[in-house]
Amino acid sequence: MAKNMMLYWGSGSPPCWRVMIALEEKQLQGYNHKHLSFDKKEYQCAEVKALNPRAQLPTFKHGDIVVNESFAACLYLENAFKTQGTRLIPSDPAEQALVYQRMFETENLQQKMYDVAFYEWYIPEGERHESALKRNKENLVKELKLWEGYLEKMGKGSFLAGKNFSMVDVVCFPVIAYFPRLHCPKEKCPRLMEYYEMVKERPSIKATWPPEWLENPVGQDTLKSL
Amino acid sequence: MAKNMMLYWGSGSPPCWRVMIALEEKQLQGYNHKHLSFDKKEYQCAEVKALNPRAQLPTFKHGDIVVNESFAACLYLENAFKTQGTRLIPSDPAEQALVYQRMFETENLQQKMYDVAFYEWYIPEGERHESALKRNKENLVKELKLWEGYLEKMGKGSFLAGKNFSMVDVVCFPVIAYFPRLHCPKEKCPRLMEYYEMVKERPSIKATWPPEWLENPVGQDTLKSL
Repeated sequence: MAKNMMLYWGSGSPPCWRVMIALEEKQLQGYNHKHLSFDKKEYQCAEVKALNPRAQLPTFKHGDIVVNESFAACLYLENAFKTQGTRLIPSDPAEQALVYQRMFETENLQQKMYDVAFYEWYIPEGERHESALKRNKENLVKELKLWEGYLEKMGKGSFLAGKNFSMVDVVCFPVIAYFPRLHCPKEKCPRLMEYYEMVKERPSIKATWPPEWLENPVGQDTLKSL
Repeated sequence: MAKNMMLYWGSGSPPCWRVMIALEEKQLQGYNHKHLSFDKKEYQCAEVKALNPRAQLPTFKHGDIVVNESFAACLYLENAFKTQGTRLIPSDPAEQALVYQRMFETENLQQKMYDVAFYEWYIPEGERHESALKRNKENLVKELKLWEGYLEKMGKGSFLAGKNFSMVDVVCFPVIAYFPRLHCPKEKCPRLMEYYEMVKERPSIKATWPPEWLENPVGQDTLKSL
């Protein structure tokens, strides 16, 4: 099945990374892919634009089916290959509800992390304000506390929605991985960092680790002063 | 089943509205609910906080299951009541992929609409820039063009993911309804406005129309100069 799949992706992008993790977890290794450079704006190539009017990565195609939004691609893969590989959306209603809930909360964590870590990238120089960055940092710290609470409640060694690896881990791990990568002090999110250490050893994560992070393991320190 | 459901909601909020539409479409009329005022910050009440550490609306409970993120609640309801009421996620893989794709694209449309319509609400006075608002408007116009293209491609009388009403319509209609509400010129999105005129007559939409919009049908003109 993976032979008629094509993924256009960029290194380190949480949206790309989560689709790659989903593909691994659903045992779809062997899919076709093209690694494009964000720096060189290769995502604006005709091949991507033909499939994705937003000209963004990931861009994903399975046969004639195109699904580019990362959460959409992950849900699509889970449904299309429900009985293959890891079951990512549990069937038990309560477990399923929690998976959906935390999946969508991930967007808060991602946005708030971006608002601090990539503030200078998103906001042109003349529009930047110390007061805005300070507020963004406060919002991120508050967000981290929520996730710390979730993990604390579920106990040591737990995944993000309980004892099983699920779609929450697929979509959220690439966001969480930015905290150590960008030198966030461990004491700001000790439980998330325990979780990170545990999950980073998982085969699907190791197989999809951003090549740029392998080449340059140190990363920047934009979250150092969080 | 609806008797053991409780929804805390605020008038006019797209996230609240979409959960209400989903409840109607799944024939779950009769659910318990509490209409809280955003102006009076009633969402910060103890009842909501006990179920939702973010103290946000919607806050939704079904039996012992709490699902507060609006997309999560909609997906949960669809799965829990798959054979009841309108089928919102089609089983055909290609149709399903499109529904997921457009569902998540809705978040782009919503954010870009907020970035213009609620610019002054989100950005403190000292941090506002004409250049930022101008860019936000350009981004919103560009986003609208994408959706216009989607509708054009599917043909007159189509819903957002094809000939059937689906989860895309559930999550996206409340966002689209803001364009006429906030006096966006019709020529900026003629096909979306045709869609709006068609879908606003649907029973699930009429039953959930924001009470504040009924009381004050005129709305503000924050999208007039788009």
